[in-house]
Amino acid sequence: MSVYTSVSEAELGDWLRHYSVGSLKACEPIESGIENTNYFVTTTQGRYVLTLFERLPAEELPFYLDLMAHLARHGIPCPAPIANLSDQYLGHLNGKPAALVTRLPGRSLEEPGAPHCEALGALLGRMHLAGRSYSAYLENPRGAKWWRFAAREVMGFLKKPQQELLERELAFQAEQRFPDLPRGPVHADLFRDNALFEGARLCGVIDFYFAGVDCLLYDLAVCANDWCLEARHGLEPKRTQALLAAYHGVRPFTELERAAWPAMLRAAALRFWLSRLYDFHLPRPGMLVHAHDPEHFRQVLHSRAATQAPWMR
Amino acid sequence: MSVYTSVSEAELGDWLRHYSVGSLKACEPIESGIENTNYFVTTTQGRYVLTLFERLPAEELPFYLDLMAHLARHGIPCPAPIANLSDQYLGHLNGKPAALVTRLPGRSLEEPGAPHCEALGALLGRMHLAGRSYSAYLENPRGAKWWRFAAREVMGFLKKPQQELLERELAFQAEQRFPDLPRGPVHADLFRDNALFEGARLCGVIDFYFAGVDCLLYDLAVCANDWCLEARHGLEPKRTQALLAAYHGVRPFTELERAAWPAMLRAAALRFWLSRLYDFHLPRPGMLVHAHDPEHFRQVLHSRAATQAPWMR
Repeated sequence: MSVYTSVSEAELGDWLRHYSVGSLKACEPIESGIENTNYFVTTTQGRYVLTLFERLPAEELPFYLDLMAHLARHGIPCPAPIANLSDQYLGHLNGKPAALVTRLPGRSLEEPGAPHCEALGALLGRMHLAGRSYSAYLENPRGAKWWRFAAREVMGFLKKPQQELLERELAFQAEQRFPDLPRGPVHADLFRDNALFEGARLCGVIDFYFAGVDCLLYDLAVCANDWCLEARHGLEPKRTQALLAAYHGVRPFTELERAAWPAMLRAAALRFWLSRLYDFHLPRPGMLVHAHDPEHFRQVLHSRAATQAPWMR
Repeated sequence: MSVYTSVSEAELGDWLRHYSVGSLKACEPIESGIENTNYFVTTTQGRYVLTLFERLPAEELPFYLDLMAHLARHGIPCPAPIANLSDQYLGHLNGKPAALVTRLPGRSLEEPGAPHCEALGALLGRMHLAGRSYSAYLENPRGAKWWRFAAREVMGFLKKPQQELLERELAFQAEQRFPDLPRGPVHADLFRDNALFEGARLCGVIDFYFAGVDCLLYDLAVCANDWCLEARHGLEPKRTQALLAAYHGVRPFTELERAAWPAMLRAAALRFWLSRLYDFHLPRPGMLVHAHDPEHFRQVLHSRAATQAPWMR
């Protein structure tokens, strides 16, 4: 569970007077999520999510909140931060930086089909186009620099074959020229649980707190490695095709991106293998959730490194 | 009907490529409204209203669009302008300035009850609080300066008793000290047809194209003169009380405002009597709608001038 800082109804009711969203009707802690404390908040005006930021550096929060606001005003269905009466997205509540954002309808899917992957690809393309005019900069905090840091930290916990896989992959990635690819703000964590559907309609993308500026193609690789998996960790062709074709229809791939796709899939797998190894072997004090098993992404990485990815034509 | 500039599906489909709202599914002209051309637009992403500005001065449009954007990001349920890929709310389509805004759910009510007036008062209060941090300035285009202009233009069309009522009222209003009252951006045209309800829930306030900076109390007087009318043009006590009490609960009235309320009700009636006289006697060339009968607001003004308004305690 993820409520690190509790907020009483009385405290929240008082705090909401700094906003023009009406008065509090109900609030309910959200149990999922591992980085922040979240509550569903219902007022006489509408439905919101309250987030208390537990770990993110305060100076980075405007990047995330302004990015969501930017995308929302371009019509991207993401949480829209609500400005308070001082015209700020970021407030403070019970000693923590806090923000109120709109709550989106819909539910996440465990087993998306090709139509869902198609909707995701199209939305990701639109998100990247809308993000072009976003001018704030924050380097992807889980980019190549961080891989090398995390690799050093976890290496000692790994068995020989895993150490070799990790070293081989870092060496391979170091040879890539990703900075030449189109870049911009990316979500960077668009797993199935961060997308909300009503039927086949993708009505929300949530949790932008791993966002940063990186290759746009990286976002798509993160998605493919989660949304398009088959049982043996390969990419299922129909879903993968649906994802890529829909994205390409909105923002056509460059030649460099086509060439980089197999390596980018490996980069995206490496990033999550590393973070899961890190959380597993070096859990933060007070971390209340069970770490994901790192083995899953080792297998994904192994699969990407071992096979061609023939789906970007 | 209000479609002065027609837009084909092909033209709109092309134009929407400058936005990140998906591709066009349907578009349908909106018959009501007299100032602009409006279409309901449905895309793969959502539902919008397209407005082509027919008469408003181009330099004033950012005031309206930025105000709606400001209020929307404060949680006020109003149309949120969608920024295009150049990060602009204002575009051009078929030779006219044009904007895409979100389409709100709900329907307007012809016979609101006290609970609806209560919801309206609370929302208006929140809108005024949220508007405080809006920094752009546009004088209410239908304020006292315009009254004097319009009065000169229509005077020759009026019979003697109407001329006397108009002159008496202008003289009375000239003695008021409204500029001492709290001011800010006001909607200034929040009639019943500009508010959308789902059941008792007020889920939208629309049509901000008469907005400007004026006394906040003026907004409330415009509402009272429309929402709280009884058959003989007086203010029905229950609805009026509900409106005022709910507003006061969000933004408490100052002493000056209490004292100004009866005169403000007359000012709001005068403004609409004048504009209806003007549109009736001096219709614009090409104006496709029938002007409202000015007589209604003459009677409202007469009623406000003749009776005390004891409902602001």
